[in-house]
Amino acid sequence: MSLPPKSENVKADGRTTLELGGVLPKTAEVRDGHLFIGGVDMVKLARVMGTALYVVDEDHFRSQLEEYLTQVRANWQDSDVVYAGKALATVGTDKIVAEEGCCLDVSSGGELALAQAAGFPMERIVEHGNNKTVPELEEALDAGVGLIVVDTHEELERISRLAVAREMSQKVLVRVTPGVVADTHAYIQTGAEDSKFGFSIHNGQAMEALKLALSLPGVELAGLHMHIGSQIFDLSGFAAANVVAADFMAQVKEETGYEAGMLDLGGGLGISYQAADKPSTIAEYAQVAIGGMRDLCQERGLKVPHLMVEPGRSVVANAGVTLYTVGSVKEIPGVRTWVAIDGGMTDNIRTALYGASYEAVVANKADQPRTEVATICGKHCESGDVIIYDASLQPVEPGDTICVFTTGAYNHTMASNYNAQVRPAMVLVRDGKPRTIIRRETYQDLLAREIY
Amino acid sequence: MSLPPKSENVKADGRTTLELGGVLPKTAEVRDGHLFIGGVDMVKLARVMGTALYVVDEDHFRSQLEEYLTQVRANWQDSDVVYAGKALATVGTDKIVAEEGCCLDVSSGGELALAQAAGFPMERIVEHGNNKTVPELEEALDAGVGLIVVDTHEELERISRLAVAREMSQKVLVRVTPGVVADTHAYIQTGAEDSKFGFSIHNGQAMEALKLALSLPGVELAGLHMHIGSQIFDLSGFAAANVVAADFMAQVKEETGYEAGMLDLGGGLGISYQAADKPSTIAEYAQVAIGGMRDLCQERGLKVPHLMVEPGRSVVANAGVTLYTVGSVKEIPGVRTWVAIDGGMTDNIRTALYGASYEAVVANKADQPRTEVATICGKHCESGDVIIYDASLQPVEPGDTICVFTTGAYNHTMASNYNAQVRPAMVLVRDGKPRTIIRRETYQDLLAREIY
Repeated sequence: MSLPPKSENVKADGRTTLELGGVLPKTAEVRDGHLFIGGVDMVKLARVMGTALYVVDEDHFRSQLEEYLTQVRANWQDSDVVYAGKALATVGTDKIVAEEGCCLDVSSGGELALAQAAGFPMERIVEHGNNKTVPELEEALDAGVGLIVVDTHEELERISRLAVAREMSQKVLVRVTPGVVADTHAYIQTGAEDSKFGFSIHNGQAMEALKLALSLPGVELAGLHMHIGSQIFDLSGFAAANVVAADFMAQVKEETGYEAGMLDLGGGLGISYQAADKPSTIAEYAQVAIGGMRDLCQERGLKVPHLMVEPGRSVVANAGVTLYTVGSVKEIPGVRTWVAIDGGMTDNIRTALYGASYEAVVANKADQPRTEVATICGKHCESGDVIIYDASLQPVEPGDTICVFTTGAYNHTMASNYNAQVRPAMVLVRDGKPRTIIRRETYQDLLAREIY
Repeated sequence: MSLPPKSENVKADGRTTLELGGVLPKTAEVRDGHLFIGGVDMVKLARVMGTALYVVDEDHFRSQLEEYLTQVRANWQDSDVVYAGKALATVGTDKIVAEEGCCLDVSSGGELALAQAAGFPMERIVEHGNNKTVPELEEALDAGVGLIVVDTHEELERISRLAVAREMSQKVLVRVTPGVVADTHAYIQTGAEDSKFGFSIHNGQAMEALKLALSLPGVELAGLHMHIGSQIFDLSGFAAANVVAADFMAQVKEETGYEAGMLDLGGGLGISYQAADKPSTIAEYAQVAIGGMRDLCQERGLKVPHLMVEPGRSVVANAGVTLYTVGSVKEIPGVRTWVAIDGGMTDNIRTALYGASYEAVVANKADQPRTEVATICGKHCESGDVIIYDASLQPVEPGDTICVFTTGAYNHTMASNYNAQVRPAMVLVRDGKPRTIIRRETYQDLLAREIY
């Protein structure tokens, strides 16, 4: 594995901030050369709050949830939008999800604890995880979560045992894998035959799991769950998986008489990380992935189940940006210009982990065209600690505020304390007002778990 | 990017635990079928402390530091061993580093705060970081750290300004890049021409930086620093870099009259992640990388400087293991067996990030041969959440204790809260006694920074 080639052949794209299209938060604007989001001056915010700083455009976040509700229900009235908290789970954002009338997908006991702190209605929680621990299952049952998505036989049996002991019945969805390989990074393909998730339809394990779920006391089989992957551009993967699922549902009806009352189609709609990306719209997704499924159910004489989808990244990724301050600019003539910022792989591991690409601007020169090419690196002791290789950027100097776009998803949630770096604060911005929902970590926090 | 091929063609190696050679902590033994480390039963420890759990063999850690001191001083009497805290920095381990008479390399204000909490002598601290922030530099100066390793002109000027304001002088090492590409993963190659670290010798920036350091008030140029990378098997990279550095030192003497009083050769010795790995010994490394440098200095008529090396991974990686409990075993016939454990990429991101490989055993069946092949995956919502692809393993079932070896370095320090997973505790084991140095994270900890 090697780093990308030298940047000598990469040309700056010459775009100004407002020419970056789909990567921008919806309220992004430029005033007096400064980038504003939610009516808040990003340069001033960086100075007041310190950097690195996560910023989330609250209007963008809310409007994506609303758009999902509108488009999904236009294609399938009896449906819910389940926001996938693993993209960005905080108490502050969980509250917004509740206010917008969506359900919430949690993927651990920790995410459930955040939802509880947010006062999220527990009956609207869908709990995920390919290997929930027994304490996590106990917490979920005791909290009264609406649905648990089941991935293994062991888990079905554990839920049954725990529910019977509590003299209750727990609604579950059985997660099935359709054997469809989504058009995305292998790490986030989840619907293939060879997966740690769910039960294979193809080899009969899904049918077996459904029969087990139907037979176990304390378990109420509410329906099926399927998720083929994340950051998907080609909608045909959804359509292909739907055919497999519909055929399977028909087969289940024939063999057992059971008809799924609920169908959760997971998430996966791709978004723009780069200005040139052309993802499908939520409307297009809803038509192909959801409307298509309704037709497939009807063709097979299946009753139309309650439908759920689980968008995460496509709700929040473009709502978020990260602000950094430039510490140094190192030009290695004929090789590369390194722009070092006061964060890095600790607050955004996605470049190192998936080879992700981002767009960035100098927030205090947001009206200028991006005429330079530079590699934006972090402050950590590792060469892989890079945010953007060969970024188009305005002329940059120490003290500038860098804004990296599309960091709303899988940045805060995957952040680490590598090099004992304290993690950034997070601020919601709306109508000209910033609201801190996560405070910056302190050295005291780093010492909290040390015993000495 | 795709996941590794199906495991059908992978055969189990049939080894028992004690046949795993260099990956084992030094005190590893098997008693009554259980794995013991530091005289402590890992199966019992997992049950008492819960899993996932980091365990560090204190004797192993100490003996590696002692071996470095012995071998380095055998080749170069006037020398120090600087433990690289980024591999594993905790208050508990920092105290051991101090007791063993080593120096400590910190790579951020956070690592400095840990060292201060450990009562580490500040004059034995070497502070690193390609982009230290101004507050971090202020903290370092106020704490009285022995040395700051400088990576940019901006930093030299900042140190000068801050030191002058404090009416003090700060000793610095100027980090130079020799243009040598180490035999390792690109993410941890750090000595190449195209690097965010240091100043290039080749293009004259290193000479320029040295002259600047010599000219600035408040800055005392103590010497040079060089680090070509990490996890290096082929020692010839060290030897090649040394020639470049020695030539450069001779050139510096000729041009400026300055002779480096200190020379820090960085770290980088590779270790065994798999039983088949055959890294060089510390003795071999010391002879080639250190003894060789002394000869090069003498040949060029340079005074012999005080020498430092900065081992991290090779001190602590094999001292550490991670214990997990198996939650489910999913066999997909003809494809793969997935063993799901109660941790994953949150406590060990190295498999996903670098494609790292590990060895594992079932700790409660440690005397049995590893006759099975299974993929050990985590509990997180991502297909890349795997610890070992196609591991040789004893027959495994839910409830078993899995021990993954060689997790002492870059596991705890890179851990995240992805999926709001709480991070593991860490236990030192020695002479039959466990001692917790990091307590397990709680949901309360996860909520500590949330504002609502």
